[in-house]
Amino acid sequence: MGKNENRKKETQGITVKKAGDFPEWYNEVVLKAGMADFAPIGGCMVIMPNGYAIWEKIQGTLDRMLKDTGHRNAYFPMFIPERFLKKEAEHFEGFVPEVAWVEDENEKYALRPTSETIMYDAYSKWIRSWRDLPVLINQWCNIVRWETKATKLFLRTREFLWQEGHTAHTSDKEADDEVMKILGLYTKLVEDYLAIPVLTGKKSEAEKFPGAQYTAAMEAMMPDGKALQMGTSHHLGQHFAKVFDIKYLDRDGREKMVWQTSWGVSTRLIGALIMVHGDDKGLVLPPKIAPIHVVIVPIIFDKDKKKVFDECRKVKEKLSGDYEVHFDERETYSAGWKFNEWEMKGVPIRLEIGPRDIAKRQVVMVRRDTGDKKPVKISGLEKTVGSTLESIQKNLFSRAKDFLEKSTVKVSTYKEFKKAIEEKRMVKTLWCGESRCEEKIKDDTAATTRVIPFSQRKPRGKCICGKKANCSVYFSRSY
Amino acid sequence: MGKNENRKKETQGITVKKAGDFPEWYNEVVLKAGMADFAPIGGCMVIMPNGYAIWEKIQGTLDRMLKDTGHRNAYFPMFIPERFLKKEAEHFEGFVPEVAWVEDENEKYALRPTSETIMYDAYSKWIRSWRDLPVLINQWCNIVRWETKATKLFLRTREFLWQEGHTAHTSDKEADDEVMKILGLYTKLVEDYLAIPVLTGKKSEAEKFPGAQYTAAMEAMMPDGKALQMGTSHHLGQHFAKVFDIKYLDRDGREKMVWQTSWGVSTRLIGALIMVHGDDKGLVLPPKIAPIHVVIVPIIFDKDKKKVFDECRKVKEKLSGDYEVHFDERETYSAGWKFNEWEMKGVPIRLEIGPRDIAKRQVVMVRRDTGDKKPVKISGLEKTVGSTLESIQKNLFSRAKDFLEKSTVKVSTYKEFKKAIEEKRMVKTLWCGESRCEEKIKDDTAATTRVIPFSQRKPRGKCICGKKANCSVYFSRSY
Repeated sequence: MGKNENRKKETQGITVKKAGDFPEWYNEVVLKAGMADFAPIGGCMVIMPNGYAIWEKIQGTLDRMLKDTGHRNAYFPMFIPERFLKKEAEHFEGFVPEVAWVEDENEKYALRPTSETIMYDAYSKWIRSWRDLPVLINQWCNIVRWETKATKLFLRTREFLWQEGHTAHTSDKEADDEVMKILGLYTKLVEDYLAIPVLTGKKSEAEKFPGAQYTAAMEAMMPDGKALQMGTSHHLGQHFAKVFDIKYLDRDGREKMVWQTSWGVSTRLIGALIMVHGDDKGLVLPPKIAPIHVVIVPIIFDKDKKKVFDECRKVKEKLSGDYEVHFDERETYSAGWKFNEWEMKGVPIRLEIGPRDIAKRQVVMVRRDTGDKKPVKISGLEKTVGSTLESIQKNLFSRAKDFLEKSTVKVSTYKEFKKAIEEKRMVKTLWCGESRCEEKIKDDTAATTRVIPFSQRKPRGKCICGKKANCSVYFSRSY
Repeated sequence: MGKNENRKKETQGITVKKAGDFPEWYNEVVLKAGMADFAPIGGCMVIMPNGYAIWEKIQGTLDRMLKDTGHRNAYFPMFIPERFLKKEAEHFEGFVPEVAWVEDENEKYALRPTSETIMYDAYSKWIRSWRDLPVLINQWCNIVRWETKATKLFLRTREFLWQEGHTAHTSDKEADDEVMKILGLYTKLVEDYLAIPVLTGKKSEAEKFPGAQYTAAMEAMMPDGKALQMGTSHHLGQHFAKVFDIKYLDRDGREKMVWQTSWGVSTRLIGALIMVHGDDKGLVLPPKIAPIHVVIVPIIFDKDKKKVFDECRKVKEKLSGDYEVHFDERETYSAGWKFNEWEMKGVPIRLEIGPRDIAKRQVVMVRRDTGDKKPVKISGLEKTVGSTLESIQKNLFSRAKDFLEKSTVKVSTYKEFKKAIEEKRMVKTLWCGESRCEEKIKDDTAATTRVIPFSQRKPRGKCICGKKANCSVYFSRSY
């Protein structure tokens, strides 16, 4: 074995505890699980094959949901003329500090920080009649937010991947329904597939998308007590329709203006997945989003090699109809090394097969989420694997849900509020709804409003600032 | 009906003949079939949903082939530091005229015209041992070639979509095998799915990829007598390994340098698809790449509406297990309008169902490629549709193959050569292999070498320039 392998072996595992140095733990998991790497460019990352495979699972899952609800994909230029970006004043103000510019002899172009303006210029040309509506277009692409300098892998980078949906409708109500439909799909994606529970609601005026009438969002709680925005769905009203002149001829022969929405989730979801489920051994992947469900590791002694390999292949064959199975047949690594590697990569189930197992017509099954290890008869293996994967999926969600619930506290005074924020909680409280109050709280505590829950009665009581309350709201520190 | 619908109706069809004004015919098909649109930015295009759906089919097909051969996807930054681009001199020279630059306070970055340099910087970090090889990574992304100003939809635009594969191997031979394996997959994709026959071979020194040891390529003949480069697969030798210092520790304990390949196909393939198969009615899609295989158009009279719609739904249900079927139930368009629209969009099979068909337990089936129209019994419809789709796929390929063969001529004198190029032929001839000869021919005739066929004996005879021949080669004008 060369010195290089020794070097690798020394550093195979995670060297810090998740509960100890969380940011360092996160970076080590991302790097050692081959999810991403720092790029030699300020603020940029490389999404490595193991990370990209998860993005492909997220893409595949969401893309199917979007197509099933009538959305179609397209691709617009990444170059956005400055004159477009300037048309909607609030939008321009919101994005211009983050923009990278290129120019040619004609004009100046922003590298797409979001695509509302370039897409709606096309919509104003394409939409003529009520027959052309609704327009339900989605785009998978890269996005540039130039001012990002400190790279937080998957969480904050100068360039990232996302999808952005942009729709146009004949009524306010229809746009409203679309906003909520999409938030529903996002919630399904994140809760049912990524196994991460979310809080949903509307954003405050200060936190909404620049140019939106309102923003609906979902927020998740990270183990370090900071919230992460997981996805947003914006009702754009007629703000952009007015400035881009997106009109149609209605059934009644009159010209009307469309109502619009836009919405997106990004590779940031992968960061949340790592933070929420990972442990001191590395990544832990929910089965529904895991590129590999089962890894088979042979336990070999020289004389039994052929027999064990044959049995491993049979087991792989048996399971491959229903699951993604990988047989690790590398002979230059020990079984122990392989255990560590596949634990690091978060594969939900490991099957160990050695000569004694073969004699007993069994395999040894190890769950990644709990570490539970037990022998399982080969005869009913498909069924056991299936139910174990389901159980892992549920367990990961319920662990995260417990954490979210334990992290959430209700407060009614500013003193309690400050204490809870210091203790890294998600804080539910009554709120006056005023931006000045929100700003003061942010200055004092670094906490911001996360979401205003959708269905709530007009509250009786006072905001933590002492004024009359207008709604209840979640506050916390955030990424 | 509003004036808008009238306007649309007036211009529903293609207004010029393919054989008449080819460039205008091409633009009309692209625009009217909803494949793409001109963007309000010099040299840029919008890929519209119908065009993007074909890109998704191409992606899905090729991605499966690449994964089946062990390749994995990743994503690298689109910002390439100038210092990286400069490392390989020939590469820098080749790409720098086309580059758009952005900068921050640290350095200048090219917007990815191709990703060799940014990827190989990472490879030099990732590759340590022979155990890490081969590295087989692919990336689906956008590419910028800034100097493009005249937009040719799908064919030449400032920004386009592609995949680029980048591999590293332990030997020259293994890299060589990879280059040919990929060219094989590309040929399969283009011939078996897009139904476009190609010529394959090596590029001349003047036409190869800047920085490559050699470039393998496939070329197709367009109806206007110009060749289109459909995909390239480059053997990079150790050119980049040397400048990026990509070394590994081999089994024998010695440090060695890797051998590399890179390869790509782009959204340009969609342009070829349109040009090769389209006709005076619009797009003609090969079934294997068509997002919709069968469109059902009801022939209704008021009293029969429900009966006809029910039957259409039953037929859709019957076929949907095996094929993508669309039932056009819009009531605001006439059957004739729908026929034209689906012909424009190139759907391979149209089924017309009216009351008289129902009475006879039949549908009327119309082939998009030949226009053949015949009644088909509903009882065996799945089978008939299946065999008809196969027949369309074959017919499109063999028509294109006939055209390529008829367009190709062998010549042995420069006089014959010039005449053949004037007649828009693909010309096979003996060649001395010298860049000066190639350049003179290009100046005289605007023809360039396309490919040098792989397996050929050392020729006896003379180049069209009079010197001793070194190989046989294809010359033609090209896109």
